[in-house]
Amino acid sequence: MTNSSRIAIDAMGGDEGLAVMLAGVARARRRFEDMRFILVGDEAAIAAGLKDHPNLSAQSEIVHAPDVIGSSEKPSQALRRAKTTSMGIAIDMVKQGRAAACVSSGNTGALMAMSKLSLRMIPGIDRPALAGLMPSLGANDTVVLDLGANTECDSRNLIQFAVMGAAYARTTLELARPRVALLNIGSEDQKGTETIRDAATALRAATHLPLDFTGFIEGDKLSRGDVDVIVCDGFSGNIALKTAEGTARFVADLLKRAFRSSTRSKIGFLISRPATELLRHHLDPNNHNGAVFLGLNGLVVKSHGGANEIGVCTAIAAAAKMVRDDLTRRIAEDLGDFEKKAA
Amino acid sequence: MTNSSRIAIDAMGGDEGLAVMLAGVARARRRFEDMRFILVGDEAAIAAGLKDHPNLSAQSEIVHAPDVIGSSEKPSQALRRAKTTSMGIAIDMVKQGRAAACVSSGNTGALMAMSKLSLRMIPGIDRPALAGLMPSLGANDTVVLDLGANTECDSRNLIQFAVMGAAYARTTLELARPRVALLNIGSEDQKGTETIRDAATALRAATHLPLDFTGFIEGDKLSRGDVDVIVCDGFSGNIALKTAEGTARFVADLLKRAFRSSTRSKIGFLISRPATELLRHHLDPNNHNGAVFLGLNGLVVKSHGGANEIGVCTAIAAAAKMVRDDLTRRIAEDLGDFEKKAA
Repeated sequence: MTNSSRIAIDAMGGDEGLAVMLAGVARARRRFEDMRFILVGDEAAIAAGLKDHPNLSAQSEIVHAPDVIGSSEKPSQALRRAKTTSMGIAIDMVKQGRAAACVSSGNTGALMAMSKLSLRMIPGIDRPALAGLMPSLGANDTVVLDLGANTECDSRNLIQFAVMGAAYARTTLELARPRVALLNIGSEDQKGTETIRDAATALRAATHLPLDFTGFIEGDKLSRGDVDVIVCDGFSGNIALKTAEGTARFVADLLKRAFRSSTRSKIGFLISRPATELLRHHLDPNNHNGAVFLGLNGLVVKSHGGANEIGVCTAIAAAAKMVRDDLTRRIAEDLGDFEKKAA
Repeated sequence: MTNSSRIAIDAMGGDEGLAVMLAGVARARRRFEDMRFILVGDEAAIAAGLKDHPNLSAQSEIVHAPDVIGSSEKPSQALRRAKTTSMGIAIDMVKQGRAAACVSSGNTGALMAMSKLSLRMIPGIDRPALAGLMPSLGANDTVVLDLGANTECDSRNLIQFAVMGAAYARTTLELARPRVALLNIGSEDQKGTETIRDAATALRAATHLPLDFTGFIEGDKLSRGDVDVIVCDGFSGNIALKTAEGTARFVADLLKRAFRSSTRSKIGFLISRPATELLRHHLDPNNHNGAVFLGLNGLVVKSHGGANEIGVCTAIAAAAKMVRDDLTRRIAEDLGDFEKKAA
């Protein structure tokens, strides 16, 4: 067993509590036979929780953390408690090389600040970006970044996000030249903020990059699969991602109401149930969980705060794939090429 | 017939062309017997188009405009052509008191700039905001503003949008104390930009306003009906609105695929069709068309550039309701109270 198959889990982070985290890890353990886990958090509580998961207890290591980061804690406060909290210690496992990745459902701002301080940035990158995969009508999912780690961004940040997002798409979606677009409120050149227009000008000129910059994309075309990577500041990205999630749930609720509205539609629903179940599965955010901080010297995966057992397992599976893909090294290489060509 | 039942139409704006605009107006004419229209645009083309709509031709006035604003034209360019374009002349009908409102499917930025210059702002308001109604799971639709007129906003703008949005909700949704929230990337006090946090502090302190400020709302809760008015800058609002539209279409497309995936589900689909048709109707943006620029001395309604005949009719119906509700006067009164109480 090598460290490359070991994942550190912030067992105390997230809104759903330790039991859900452990159930998610146990589920991942059943899926990935060769995966081992370091469970970081309250030792006694984890040991008690593991009684429900015999498949985990024998092969997991518990690392005690006396403290936990609150969901509304400021990053600056959190940083001071890196050494005593489950989140801080889980990240440190990656830094020390004891784990190949860490997964946390905790506070995004704190996770980003701690990861940045502990693991440091890849040369040439100013800030990490949180990147996730959104389902689309196209042949592959779409990479979207930043999803909320950087509330305000300048054009230099957006350009770096584009390069990192393309590197992520090359690795995880296996695309040679990903199509990259900037999220904007119109497709015409003069639309949006100066920051976005400047980033577009630079990306249009950077023809040496292994990506196809396609210009601006609007919110209504996010799921169409017309591009592979969508770049935005963390504020817009968070609004777009959550609005998409909320709208999918809204439509599903309306559909439920519609099916219940008459005996006829109830019968139709029962008959077509296998089809609608498939749709429900496809739209459940728990099946798309696991965003990664790109730009760090190490893999840190953010799981949705409200993720259930399946969501936690999906995030761990995403982390496992990034370990197998050697994502950190490949992004660093890609950026090295970018720097050399830019110089 | 009074001017209060006359609406000016920018017949040349929008991506779908004159024929769709005229078909939409004819549809509205059938719905609102007492409504009269001023059709602004190329006189010969409109006269030719009216041959298909005998119910319109007798009772509509045509005002010739030799020119039209392009969809990618900069607002500053458009302003210079206010007197010769269908958009500029349609707005001028409102200024001159010849029409009670104007409706355009043209370029949003140009429409806002021209309207602002021609009609001027209500005292105490710095910038107009584009407000629309989004469907929700609650008892009423939700007012969302700004939807794209102001790409960047300061906290003072956001506070004014909140007051105007609440006045709009009181008038159009008939709510005594609308619940108002600021769109943000988290619900905790320290989340988001300084601009948003400052606006929240001011709104929390302004207990004299006839609204209940409920704090921050995230993108995934937009359609839940938990609040009546959602306030944001035009960039985030445009991203959220379009992402919601695109996601609803995406889910509908997936549903279609799911229903087609087997004979069984095809049969189920046919049986439950009346229910899914109702849902399709409810989600079609054409049935929620017609956003209004709040803060102007006059009614200017923006119809979606890609609106079809039904969408144009919906936007005209929205304008007709605003005329009946005497929206401009009621918002000005509301803001007068606000200014007095703030002083």
